[in-house]
Amino acid sequence: MTRYEQLAGMIRQQIEDDIWQVGDRLPSLRESVKSSGLSLMTVLQAYQLLESQGWIVARPQSGYYVAPRLKPFAAAKGGKELNLTENVEISASIFDVLQACKDPQIIPFGSAFPDPSLLAEPKLSKILASVARRFVPHSSLANLPPGNEKLRRNISRRYAAHGIHVSPDEIVITAGAMESLSFSLQSVTSPGDWVVIESPAFYGALQAIERLRLKAIAIKTDPLTGIDLDTLQQVVQKYPIKACWLMSRFQNPLCSTMPPENKQRLVEILNHSQIALVEDDVYGELYFEQEPPAPIKAWDTENNFMHCASFSKCLAPGYRVGWVAAGKHAKKIQQLQMMSTVSASTPTQLAIADYLAQGGYDNHLRRLRRQLEQRQSRMLWAISEYFPQSVKVNSARGGYFLWLEFESPFNANRLYQLALAKHISIAPGSMFSTSAQFDHAFRLNTSFAWNETQALAMKELGKLCHQLLKECG
Amino acid sequence: MTRYEQLAGMIRQQIEDDIWQVGDRLPSLRESVKSSGLSLMTVLQAYQLLESQGWIVARPQSGYYVAPRLKPFAAAKGGKELNLTENVEISASIFDVLQACKDPQIIPFGSAFPDPSLLAEPKLSKILASVARRFVPHSSLANLPPGNEKLRRNISRRYAAHGIHVSPDEIVITAGAMESLSFSLQSVTSPGDWVVIESPAFYGALQAIERLRLKAIAIKTDPLTGIDLDTLQQVVQKYPIKACWLMSRFQNPLCSTMPPENKQRLVEILNHSQIALVEDDVYGELYFEQEPPAPIKAWDTENNFMHCASFSKCLAPGYRVGWVAAGKHAKKIQQLQMMSTVSASTPTQLAIADYLAQGGYDNHLRRLRRQLEQRQSRMLWAISEYFPQSVKVNSARGGYFLWLEFESPFNANRLYQLALAKHISIAPGSMFSTSAQFDHAFRLNTSFAWNETQALAMKELGKLCHQLLKECG
Repeated sequence: MTRYEQLAGMIRQQIEDDIWQVGDRLPSLRESVKSSGLSLMTVLQAYQLLESQGWIVARPQSGYYVAPRLKPFAAAKGGKELNLTENVEISASIFDVLQACKDPQIIPFGSAFPDPSLLAEPKLSKILASVARRFVPHSSLANLPPGNEKLRRNISRRYAAHGIHVSPDEIVITAGAMESLSFSLQSVTSPGDWVVIESPAFYGALQAIERLRLKAIAIKTDPLTGIDLDTLQQVVQKYPIKACWLMSRFQNPLCSTMPPENKQRLVEILNHSQIALVEDDVYGELYFEQEPPAPIKAWDTENNFMHCASFSKCLAPGYRVGWVAAGKHAKKIQQLQMMSTVSASTPTQLAIADYLAQGGYDNHLRRLRRQLEQRQSRMLWAISEYFPQSVKVNSARGGYFLWLEFESPFNANRLYQLALAKHISIAPGSMFSTSAQFDHAFRLNTSFAWNETQALAMKELGKLCHQLLKECG
Repeated sequence: MTRYEQLAGMIRQQIEDDIWQVGDRLPSLRESVKSSGLSLMTVLQAYQLLESQGWIVARPQSGYYVAPRLKPFAAAKGGKELNLTENVEISASIFDVLQACKDPQIIPFGSAFPDPSLLAEPKLSKILASVARRFVPHSSLANLPPGNEKLRRNISRRYAAHGIHVSPDEIVITAGAMESLSFSLQSVTSPGDWVVIESPAFYGALQAIERLRLKAIAIKTDPLTGIDLDTLQQVVQKYPIKACWLMSRFQNPLCSTMPPENKQRLVEILNHSQIALVEDDVYGELYFEQEPPAPIKAWDTENNFMHCASFSKCLAPGYRVGWVAAGKHAKKIQQLQMMSTVSASTPTQLAIADYLAQGGYDNHLRRLRRQLEQRQSRMLWAISEYFPQSVKVNSARGGYFLWLEFESPFNANRLYQLALAKHISIAPGSMFSTSAQFDHAFRLNTSFAWNETQALAMKELGKLCHQLLKECG
């Protein structure tokens, strides 16, 4: 073995031992020369060997990083062309799936929430404590809709940092993104109206449509590129669509992200037919690349797009503070809010406003993204180890969901039941559609810290998939 | 002048100088003997003279209290027999009325909220600060619907203290009473169903009915005794009523409280026709007598009554924590919540739970009730001083609303506009009905501290009423 092969072997061993984890930056060439006493050429050759073997990746101007260890999976397929539903009725079992994740005895792969320990931010807790001590009841009036002014200004600045102009006046602070979405949809529709959603779609969209007595057209959505625009184009020509509710970044449950050219074409289709957009963007901050993809709101020229997000998935679960950049619909949304939850909780609004003003959120987000990337990689690795080879997986460079498919008649509802009996939860595909077309698929939450219990659970889940496939014949 | 007349005169002067305020307890006979050096008989005669002149009232086993200084007003009338509305549409102007109260330049007699300074409770702020320092993100999962367990247990104990059995399991913590009410109504109705409400009714009820596409029958409601039961009886025989939404204590806007025998009869009517009750009881804690009237929930034998309340009006405005004692509808309500605001804010839930457990809430409430009683009395006095004699006023032994009526064609919407131009807000009667039958009436908030500005505003309002009456001819 040459010296560079020895060095490469040593680093590979360190990666296998988790001394360097996926996404970690390796010591620079210079540092490595210093610590190993080897020549620059030798170190460079070792790194190049590791790169050619797929253990590490080079990022220009940045260095070498531990690569995800993966066999390539077959591509997941997503939904059928379209699915018209005049009476949206979603199953009460969604509630049971979500409730199961509260039980600390259950491995919450079916959870919609990220691992809460990822979001621990002691600085925010300290600020809330300080806000609480200074809290005067009068401020509850000042923070009625549209909500705390400082918070709206700071959210507006975060948009500006990505080149998106959103005035604080069009921002309404809400008790979380779910409320933002629901008010947004309500503000532009009346019962009986047609709306377009994705297929599969976030069950919250289905529920809002059911509650508002709207009619839904679910359009096939690609696990990589999102909603199918050719189909959408045909639909808007045939139906008087009032609103389109979708997620352009790290879609739930597929984790798809629309390419910029698709976003632009979508905007043209919507603007041409004067269709309002309800953009659910709760995972938008959880990107793994250096720069985030842009939300569709960035292309809004008509003030007709409502961009909904919150702090629940990346900073402050349980604070219940979200917002909507509502364009021309801001006033209507405030009216709906005054008659519904009145306002978001004032102390938590004030705390997040102070936190954003003091800085530190971006550092917190960088740490969070890195950890999510590592944990996703671990889960993918476990799937490649334990699951049947025929599994199709969609993973994305962001978020914390994996979408898994088997060939029909594989039944993910049955998998859900069997897994729950073993204290493991998953989110079966049936949660994300009014049709049965996703009964062969399910969603896994990848945000939890990898440990023995997680490993055993993934092994068990793999075993159950094998068993179910065998039963299918 | 005799000695007792001299003593009585002195005390009267002290009352006029606000040394003793309405509702204050005067020194006991014994104390007064000691401080004045007069005989017990002389002091007793002085107190009896003051009582006969209406300055003070005796309360058995308790002592002498400063009485409200009032000319008796003519009784207000409330609503017409009944009012059917198949398409409830309420005016967007309600939002403007509520928003005006945010402006610190405006005297907020039209506000629905109590004076925030009444609710300052430093102990609660300290507890929230302590909760914030100990806050771990994991607790957001544990406090998902039905909400914090300790809080539910403490609310349950408060019911028990009034002899009402409500299990913690049937309590759902919400982001305020408005959310409780809306979920409660939704849990027992489908679009197109008939529901019964009061006339006049809280505009939140009208809005919820509009949003859920229900049909409403508004039943005349007496300013003293509440909803008219003979009319209700006829209505339930003729229409398939699904739910009845009302306020049995300190109704908004009339401030009426149903007598116990009316409550019992109402329960019989509802149970006989299996009609669910949505009881809005946000002012229930704000009674002026020694003991509170009972909520209708106290008579619930079928677990079909949903009792909705919150801490927003008596302790923690802006915390957005309320609840519903939902009987058999608790699970359905949790499902609606999970798909709407997910949960109430966790830190504020935890803070109120700790506050209730540590004690002190009842002392806070006693102080609050006393202050509200004094402030109501001051406002009544101002009305008798400044307003046209033909005003009809309903005041109650609780809450912080006065309901004022003039004869038609007096136009309270016009009064609202004229008053707003002078930076005074009122709540015009049109907010509380889909019909025009309360256009001659309005609601005043009596919770604000009496001072020069308030006095001038009431004088101005009185002048505007005189002016409008003159225009009516």
